[in-house]
Amino acid sequence: MASQKSLEALFQPKSIAIIGASPDSNKLGGRPLNYLQRNGYKGQIFPINPNYNEISGLKCYSSLLDIVEDIDLAIISLPSKLVVNVLKQCAEKGVKAAVIFSSGFSEIGEEGRKLQEEMTAISKKSGIRILGPNTLGMFNLKSEVFATFSTILEKQTPLKGNIGFVSQSGAFGSHVFTLARQNFIGFSHFVATGNESDIDVADCIEFLAEDPDTDVIACYMEGIKDGNKLINAFKLAAEKKKPVIAFKVGKTNAGQRAALSHTGSLAGSDQVFNAIAKQYGVYRAETIEEFIDAAYACSMLPLPKGDKAAVFTVSGGVGILLADQLTEASLTVPEPSVEVQQQLSDLLPIAGVKNPIDTTAQLNTRQNLLQDFMEIVLSSGEYDSAIVFLAFGGLYPEHAQNHIRSISNIAGKYKETPIITVSLNSEASKKSFMEKRLAVIEDPSRAVNAMKALKYFSQFYKEEFETARFDGMNGVSFDNLPSVLTEHKSKEILKHIGIPITKEQLAATLAEAKIMAREIGYPVALKGMSPQILHKSDKGLVQLNITNEEELEEKFSFIKQQISLTEKAEYEGILVQEMLSKDSVEMFIGANQDPVFGQMILVGLGGIHIEVYKDAVMRKAPISEKTAEEMLDELRSKALLKGFRGSAPRDLKELSRVVAKFSQFISTHDEIEEIDLNPIMVHAEGEGVTVADALITLKKKALSNIK
Amino acid sequence: MASQKSLEALFQPKSIAIIGASPDSNKLGGRPLNYLQRNGYKGQIFPINPNYNEISGLKCYSSLLDIVEDIDLAIISLPSKLVVNVLKQCAEKGVKAAVIFSSGFSEIGEEGRKLQEEMTAISKKSGIRILGPNTLGMFNLKSEVFATFSTILEKQTPLKGNIGFVSQSGAFGSHVFTLARQNFIGFSHFVATGNESDIDVADCIEFLAEDPDTDVIACYMEGIKDGNKLINAFKLAAEKKKPVIAFKVGKTNAGQRAALSHTGSLAGSDQVFNAIAKQYGVYRAETIEEFIDAAYACSMLPLPKGDKAAVFTVSGGVGILLADQLTEASLTVPEPSVEVQQQLSDLLPIAGVKNPIDTTAQLNTRQNLLQDFMEIVLSSGEYDSAIVFLAFGGLYPEHAQNHIRSISNIAGKYKETPIITVSLNSEASKKSFMEKRLAVIEDPSRAVNAMKALKYFSQFYKEEFETARFDGMNGVSFDNLPSVLTEHKSKEILKHIGIPITKEQLAATLAEAKIMAREIGYPVALKGMSPQILHKSDKGLVQLNITNEEELEEKFSFIKQQISLTEKAEYEGILVQEMLSKDSVEMFIGANQDPVFGQMILVGLGGIHIEVYKDAVMRKAPISEKTAEEMLDELRSKALLKGFRGSAPRDLKELSRVVAKFSQFISTHDEIEEIDLNPIMVHAEGEGVTVADALITLKKKALSNIK
Repeated sequence: MASQKSLEALFQPKSIAIIGASPDSNKLGGRPLNYLQRNGYKGQIFPINPNYNEISGLKCYSSLLDIVEDIDLAIISLPSKLVVNVLKQCAEKGVKAAVIFSSGFSEIGEEGRKLQEEMTAISKKSGIRILGPNTLGMFNLKSEVFATFSTILEKQTPLKGNIGFVSQSGAFGSHVFTLARQNFIGFSHFVATGNESDIDVADCIEFLAEDPDTDVIACYMEGIKDGNKLINAFKLAAEKKKPVIAFKVGKTNAGQRAALSHTGSLAGSDQVFNAIAKQYGVYRAETIEEFIDAAYACSMLPLPKGDKAAVFTVSGGVGILLADQLTEASLTVPEPSVEVQQQLSDLLPIAGVKNPIDTTAQLNTRQNLLQDFMEIVLSSGEYDSAIVFLAFGGLYPEHAQNHIRSISNIAGKYKETPIITVSLNSEASKKSFMEKRLAVIEDPSRAVNAMKALKYFSQFYKEEFETARFDGMNGVSFDNLPSVLTEHKSKEILKHIGIPITKEQLAATLAEAKIMAREIGYPVALKGMSPQILHKSDKGLVQLNITNEEELEEKFSFIKQQISLTEKAEYEGILVQEMLSKDSVEMFIGANQDPVFGQMILVGLGGIHIEVYKDAVMRKAPISEKTAEEMLDELRSKALLKGFRGSAPRDLKELSRVVAKFSQFISTHDEIEEIDLNPIMVHAEGEGVTVADALITLKKKALSNIK
Repeated sequence: MASQKSLEALFQPKSIAIIGASPDSNKLGGRPLNYLQRNGYKGQIFPINPNYNEISGLKCYSSLLDIVEDIDLAIISLPSKLVVNVLKQCAEKGVKAAVIFSSGFSEIGEEGRKLQEEMTAISKKSGIRILGPNTLGMFNLKSEVFATFSTILEKQTPLKGNIGFVSQSGAFGSHVFTLARQNFIGFSHFVATGNESDIDVADCIEFLAEDPDTDVIACYMEGIKDGNKLINAFKLAAEKKKPVIAFKVGKTNAGQRAALSHTGSLAGSDQVFNAIAKQYGVYRAETIEEFIDAAYACSMLPLPKGDKAAVFTVSGGVGILLADQLTEASLTVPEPSVEVQQQLSDLLPIAGVKNPIDTTAQLNTRQNLLQDFMEIVLSSGEYDSAIVFLAFGGLYPEHAQNHIRSISNIAGKYKETPIITVSLNSEASKKSFMEKRLAVIEDPSRAVNAMKALKYFSQFYKEEFETARFDGMNGVSFDNLPSVLTEHKSKEILKHIGIPITKEQLAATLAEAKIMAREIGYPVALKGMSPQILHKSDKGLVQLNITNEEELEEKFSFIKQQISLTEKAEYEGILVQEMLSKDSVEMFIGANQDPVFGQMILVGLGGIHIEVYKDAVMRKAPISEKTAEEMLDELRSKALLKGFRGSAPRDLKELSRVVAKFSQFISTHDEIEEIDLNPIMVHAEGEGVTVADALITLKKKALSNIK
């Protein structure tokens, strides 16, 4: 990948210049040098500051241009007004990447935004990659690169690990880092993207997806500028089977307002982000604890092959809690076979053997009990994962050591079974778990969430990842059309691409209408078409259930008059349309342009389903028929499609075909702003679907003359 | 209260006998003596064990009967087969309470259950109160009473606090205690109720509600035997304004199976428990963390006067997260007034001043910034609560101390405003917060949940607590009625108690039916009544929309024939009934007997609302009209009652009156097993409601002859 290469100079520089270096490690410009030296960076370091000849035993330069050697990475810690010129120097010297700590850019308003745009222009022109400005910086633990002024490294030795962490907020990132560090969780990279004048979260995810030292990607996001770029990064990570765990804030109005005031970024629609996460296999964490726990579990454990979880517990009560919460997380806690139960009972008659497997407090007094129990249960092949609750192991070092040995033996033998231990730890027991590469979490519910994340990825990787290229829908041109297409024009387009619509013809005159009605067969509907009248019913332009010619005459004239009475409304004609049976289920399919992610498709039942229960499912277009089926299956109201109260099951096969076809159509027609098929009548199995009404709105046309 | 007095000997005994005492503190019988002596119990202790003359410096007795002095409490740590006899001795000697550690009773099956029943009988007869058997015991930190063998006290000095903690699981209780202890959270009492042969969770809640040292009650439950007793305990706690936080497991099928196998208790319906918790102001925690955090916050902080939360944060990112999650928890994060924003900006131009109030990292470098910011914001009176996010204060003792001082000053001044600090703590900073009585929680989402709990109680205490006594519904007798009442009989009873039903009359003959139909007015419905035919429609006994006499004749004969063709079906007559307008909203009101909590009432819209979206609201009967209004307001489908898509708002006033009336009726008629008003047609405002169909099923009658 291009970006992988181009970010190498940032993450693995062979030489680093620190512009604005300081001997004082309390100063921003003093810290990177301190961290680099302390943590054993092996490349060359060039401090630059005209006020010093030497800093920390290194020759100090007055200017970047005085350095003879090649520079991979420049760290810039200068007042904002000096940054643009220095960046120009960097470009001139052929520096490959820059980390810019300085604040005072887009986050402070118009003036800063202009300065930042200059930097973006320099980056584009010269190819120098920029992290920041207004960034806490980054570090790469494999290469001991520390281009950061974060104080989190002052009092903590960072741990190497296989989690790559990207954050749009430096302070948030630091908090998560510290919390993880307290639990001996290490990272491969830590990147705060700051104002994202060049490198953004998507670039970093892409880099980490290709990085051999990273197995799991954790990212914190407030706002996304380029949705398609992010999707591509998610896709790459999915292809590489590297779990991405996302923490996305700005869900509520209050949160979106706060995001806007924090970094000026638009948080975007939360519903859209959820759809994107689901579609591209990103696990969205809801709390910081879940964020860390999910990343930790993914970084330590195999993915479970299935849903069946075994629970070993020293407390019957916590066993019940775990059974409840695993079930709520869509895992199962089935009883073991009679043989397994018997073996367990033989070992310990008072044990609970039905899963949760209650070892009772004997766990702590009988040395091999836990290992024997786990061996019996896991060797049966009846379970895909295990949670072990030890209560407060940390209080009793001798018990803790014994349990760690037992679990380690079992984990070593059953390498494909994820095992999470739940225990209140001492510092020492935490460390022992980590040294044996055993996952331990202090709280049962948190352990369940971590297992849920493992299951999420296991399931996502099992399904065929949708990479199919879809044919564009050619032969449809929107040239010379008004901004809003009438029902008739909209449906002509749908018909053209193979989406079934009602039998209908556009009549200019009553005489035509009569012939058409006879052809279609009574009863018919009449609908007045005018590109200026969007809400046809409000104006009386929809007349249903016309059973004879006399009625047709009357309604035809009425509709025509209604249009002629509406100011500036052009008369396109009157649509003569078949009446559909009331027995079909009314659904809608809609699409609109999300400002971040582009064409999104929405499917659901109409009326109270969407208005009261918000029951609709969204995806980014295009999708396959299989994904369309999944969408329908996610509807809570799906019962109504599968034969509710004795009615015949609906034609979901044809509906899925239409949804997929529709999604492929809109994904290749960016000129569509919004499109609604509403209602689309879904008939009984084998009888297909029929779009009864539709509305296409095109982009970039003045909508001022619409009623 | 009687029970308060009667449990005093258990919780505040002046003298304790330990039957089965041991000098070995590794043995169950050795631990209480050790804990009592170590923690300074001030009453008399009498070890009893025929094998010793002296234990730990105390005279040891061979038998309880050898002791001259009065004994308040006996701790019994003996093999199960000896317990009953010793308990008889206790009763004989006038011992007031016993804690029975011994296992081998109802938890092991039939034989144990019988032994336990003997104990219950002794308790009932003699008045001796029993905690256990199969209990970890209890401790009361105010009186230094330690009647427990729990090892949690071995390595931890318990802290005195104002939270009373009752647990149906000893191991769960120990885990929670340990977790709380690590966070310097203290308790007034810790009680594990074991097999509950006498004292149960409800007794303990009632005691703690009256106990002056307890301000908050935390309880863990697996199964409830006596629902009304528990409700009375909840009511007492609510009257005393002592928050009750409940952790109830056995929510899912897997959890209920686990509960049954753990203590043999039936977990009961989760939906019913939720309704009870809501009705009696119990906060139900979903995780152990939430359980502890909610109890902790309630024990430390005032309840907020309203919803408006101020957020102070050192991280913009966490500020957004807090804004999101507070909003999701039904709190609000409004912007401060322009004046307040100006004052904040004057102090720190780069601050985010719109709430979240982003102090930036300046928080750590400018000594008074936090206090000044909080002073400006809280003195404005614009907020009811505050959350302060400090990130990893624990890493920087000097910052932490400064912040603690600031928050302490503010908390001291704004005593009615709950303030929760979020910070990763060191052991020392944790302790400092506790010493200043400041609430600190390590995770932002957990802090939000704690605030949510405070708000829950604030809101609950604001509403008038429903204690009204309702009039019984006299004049309704179910004597001499079959087990299942026909629609007609059911509705006669409803009519009698003032619930409006359809205009209808029971016709024995066609001639009668004709007269009635004319009186009621066509169109009418005919419904065949037979107490043996429950599903009328299935047998063709419901004929709607009969518009004339000819049709009436035909349908009447048809229905009559259908009944005569059904084996053993008695003919009660044929109901002639008005047809109701289709415009009304169809709802249902139902009630049935929950085995634990008695008559529960359920209200909702029918059809897909209940079947697809499970949209229904439950309460224990009886309720007031005000509570009925609240129930309707909790329906997600309430939009349909308030004027959906231009239809008139429904007559909610009359509906609430009917729901309340109905609840009062069923609550005084325990002979009703189940009752359904379905549908009840809710007309437009001012036009009332009409029950269109109803079915009453009585208890204890053979249902074998029902079709």
